[in-house]
Amino acid sequence: MHTVVQSASKTVTIGHDQPFVIIGERINPTGRKKFQELLRAGDLSTIAIDVEAQIKGGADMLDVNMGVPLTDEPALLSAAIKMIQGITDIPICIDSSVIEALQAGLEAYEGKALVNSMTGEDDRMELILPLIKKHNAAIIALPNDEIGIPATAAERIVITEKIIRAVEKHGISLDNLVIDPLAMTVGADPEAVKITLETIHLIREKFGLNMTLGASNISFGLPNRHALNAAFLPAAMSHGLTCAVMDARTPAINEAVRAADLLLGMDQWGGNWISRFRAQEAAKAEG
Amino acid sequence: MHTVVQSASKTVTIGHDQPFVIIGERINPTGRKKFQELLRAGDLSTIAIDVEAQIKGGADMLDVNMGVPLTDEPALLSAAIKMIQGITDIPICIDSSVIEALQAGLEAYEGKALVNSMTGEDDRMELILPLIKKHNAAIIALPNDEIGIPATAAERIVITEKIIRAVEKHGISLDNLVIDPLAMTVGADPEAVKITLETIHLIREKFGLNMTLGASNISFGLPNRHALNAAFLPAAMSHGLTCAVMDARTPAINEAVRAADLLLGMDQWGGNWISRFRAQEAAKAEG
Repeated sequence: MHTVVQSASKTVTIGHDQPFVIIGERINPTGRKKFQELLRAGDLSTIAIDVEAQIKGGADMLDVNMGVPLTDEPALLSAAIKMIQGITDIPICIDSSVIEALQAGLEAYEGKALVNSMTGEDDRMELILPLIKKHNAAIIALPNDEIGIPATAAERIVITEKIIRAVEKHGISLDNLVIDPLAMTVGADPEAVKITLETIHLIREKFGLNMTLGASNISFGLPNRHALNAAFLPAAMSHGLTCAVMDARTPAINEAVRAADLLLGMDQWGGNWISRFRAQEAAKAEG
Repeated sequence: MHTVVQSASKTVTIGHDQPFVIIGERINPTGRKKFQELLRAGDLSTIAIDVEAQIKGGADMLDVNMGVPLTDEPALLSAAIKMIQGITDIPICIDSSVIEALQAGLEAYEGKALVNSMTGEDDRMELILPLIKKHNAAIIALPNDEIGIPATAAERIVITEKIIRAVEKHGISLDNLVIDPLAMTVGADPEAVKITLETIHLIREKFGLNMTLGASNISFGLPNRHALNAAFLPAAMSHGLTCAVMDARTPAINEAVRAADLLLGMDQWGGNWISRFRAQEAAKAEG
């Protein structure tokens, strides 16, 4: 199963036989008060800094969210996407919980976008899937529904099946469906990560679908989060996770991802790993 | 399934519901020419330095191998075990390919030892299992046989089944059997680690046995081996690996193991993780 995402000139393929896709997460004003104020004043300049930092860190795609309270989110998201596509050819993941913003984002975007995200709630699927079909986009879907986030992997599989039926009913290829198996913090529930890994394993085994996560959630509230995230991603990848929305600026976490690519046979003979190492050594030598 | 290993005064429990057990690997003259010369001259003083370094690094047990060519290995292993038990109460994994050395080691050891290792070859099992039974020890067994190391997980499972039958025939509880699912270097075969992970997953699922690995093998010949090993262990643990023979002196690898303990529910509410973090912060503050 290959989920193909494109800008006007660049293609990224997400798949179980492909290197892991890092979707840079920083272009998002949530919890960033100053960034929110700038965006509200129409100043998009911080976006360019964030885009550069994510790409420099190793992002393969960029998640773009413009959820600023009391703004015209559709207009802002549309403007941000146009601006970002003017400075980079890296494909974009259009991120909003507002249908009108997704619609405006999809209209502004040049290429084949990934949309983040849709739940398994009937009314949400009925609104979002026609947009996905119309724009030939791909969609990230979360296996939670009207009742909330299911506690067990088995329940998440049931909602995933429901999502698959809806996607097929709308004439969308399953290649364009990416499941987010839901990562909760292990600080609040010691079983949380085990349940996420079990869900990933089952979705891979039963449906072969691509999967993404908001990977940093798992360590929320705990000290030394980078080390927890760096340990989590190789484990999740070994069960079938194929991409993640994450901050690409942390070298230890990116290194863990690229190490896992090699270990899982996605970097045959270590060509990428060895190039990466040589570049690091060269950077060190330059001081 | 709990594999219990003991010194005269300390117990270590290996199990799928227990924190991962790090078996310190450095007390081994293989590839260490100077250490070999010292041992050949009857000077065991380097052992004390290695023991201290492994324990300081976070080893829960110690692997002890005295395979020095042209020496009386049984006498040397026996002397090393007595000496180590005089300076630490950490349980020991008695490591040799020489039956007489294993026998001497088991006779010298106070407590319940783990023995490293036995293949699935009939003649080896017929020699080693009576020793294990007599000393109520636990045994690490490798699923390879007269034909060599099987290329697929399915073949490794067949030999594991053969080992299980032999262990039961000798009246040894399966609690005392630890399988080493065989880790080959990914630098020589891009599929090697995937096959190891699949073997671990199947052995956990089918037999529930404990498993160990010579974990650093996977990165042999590649640059930045620590990062590869640190990515590998959380993945292997998430599939069912419960201990590993590894050099405990590398903080990044130990940290990955303890992070995975927390992620997999073996460090509920992060008590160990938070203590570890505080100790690191205190050490930094002291400079």
